[in-house]
Amino acid sequence: IGRARGRLAVIGLGPGAAELMVPAVKAELARANDVLGYETYVRMAGPFRADQVLHCTDNREEMQRARHAFELAAQGRSVVVVSSGDPGVFAMAAAVLEALHESADPQWHNVDLEILPGVSASLATAAQAGAPLGHDFCVMSLSDNLKPWSIIEKRLDLASQADLALAFYNPISRSRPWQLGVALEIVARHRTPRTPVVLGRDIGRPGQTLRVTTLGELTPEQVDMRTMVIVGSSTTCTFPRADGREWVYTPRWYGDKP
Amino acid sequence: IGRARGRLAVIGLGPGAAELMVPAVKAELARANDVLGYETYVRMAGPFRADQVLHCTDNREEMQRARHAFELAAQGRSVVVVSSGDPGVFAMAAAVLEALHESADPQWHNVDLEILPGVSASLATAAQAGAPLGHDFCVMSLSDNLKPWSIIEKRLDLASQADLALAFYNPISRSRPWQLGVALEIVARHRTPRTPVVLGRDIGRPGQTLRVTTLGELTPEQVDMRTMVIVGSSTTCTFPRADGREWVYTPRWYGDKP
Repeated sequence: IGRARGRLAVIGLGPGAAELMVPAVKAELARANDVLGYETYVRMAGPFRADQVLHCTDNREEMQRARHAFELAAQGRSVVVVSSGDPGVFAMAAAVLEALHESADPQWHNVDLEILPGVSASLATAAQAGAPLGHDFCVMSLSDNLKPWSIIEKRLDLASQADLALAFYNPISRSRPWQLGVALEIVARHRTPRTPVVLGRDIGRPGQTLRVTTLGELTPEQVDMRTMVIVGSSTTCTFPRADGREWVYTPRWYGDKP
Repeated sequence: IGRARGRLAVIGLGPGAAELMVPAVKAELARANDVLGYETYVRMAGPFRADQVLHCTDNREEMQRARHAFELAAQGRSVVVVSSGDPGVFAMAAAVLEALHESADPQWHNVDLEILPGVSASLATAAQAGAPLGHDFCVMSLSDNLKPWSIIEKRLDLASQADLALAFYNPISRSRPWQLGVALEIVARHRTPRTPVVLGRDIGRPGQTLRVTTLGELTPEQVDMRTMVIVGSSTTCTFPRADGREWVYTPRWYGDKP
């Protein structure tokens, strides 16, 4: 006679708007007994019923949150861990798997664990701008909280040399004020000042803004921690929209236009 | 007295399952007069009403399809161009923008154009495997139909040196039999044979299969054109699931474990 097998779903809300959240995630939220996550994202995932327990924590406490989720699920509960965007891209899925990997508790390993994908912030931003990630691209976090700055510099240098379009997560914060400026200098060694740059802030959320600029004109002051930065490759181009803004896209081809 | 302003939406179905298609895309399909796309994807997007016109074409005719979409939308119709996954990742958004960029027709430029994102094949595959793209990663197409093989080799070499996890679209086809083998040799210069590799075939569709192997054991015969190939970085690791399969994840940190 055992307890019901618990469930842990690591979900991605998408950028924020309900119309960009996949139905599988909506169904999982409805079925949850417990919802864990950074407060901003848990609030985005609501409204919830009175019988659902919300566990809101600070953004930095990812491993603690992951372990707490397994403790609850191991009791037979249905647990959801919330990320914005896609949970597998600089979000909770990796932390949840790391917590499970470190654990020798058979009850944790018996939990029905599923990762449910979502529309990532980079792809939501790209869609608003046009198709800047329409050809080979690289997705990087500029945060050196969990990795040495030296590997970030190395990756930036090689990815820029490779002429990949670049999407930057965590481009800047109060505690990391200088990193973005250095990153842009590294990119500028390999790209012209006219390279298109997309700045998407709060894309898919109320008050979203989209700005198209160039590598030569971009300064770190134009970016904050809620901004997704996309830097084009050598083939990325722009042209005016009817409303005065600009479309940005990276063609499907490289070299000779077909 | 003018015609109604036409609309053109470039949509991503996600990997295939209805529960992974965002509501904005479902609403757009319901509103469409005309639906254009590769036949397989148009069929995935259905069922349609009798009054909706389907325009199914071969996968190679992307520019022609894009122009056709503008011709229809310029007549005031509501037009949808269908991609699987996300339309901005090796799919129709870049072709549609290129067609518009090339056109001087003010009616085309007056069309209400919108790109609606979806869950990309790479992120859907990653979610099934765990979180192999949980840290910095690179997304590349291995097809040399629209780019010289030399730039693919260069990008593979630099991205591998940068220790980025790698997601390969279009890894192999009957007309491109040798490219994947060469690509894997390039990656193997910079990664150990024990590097985890994920092979996701038809993920999110009936008959999906997921296989976890290693760079040393992977051969091109295990891959076909419907397979998404994800190669881990030096930090990507695996551990057994309760059901005998394996989880794969790339930790949030790099270097010293926090």
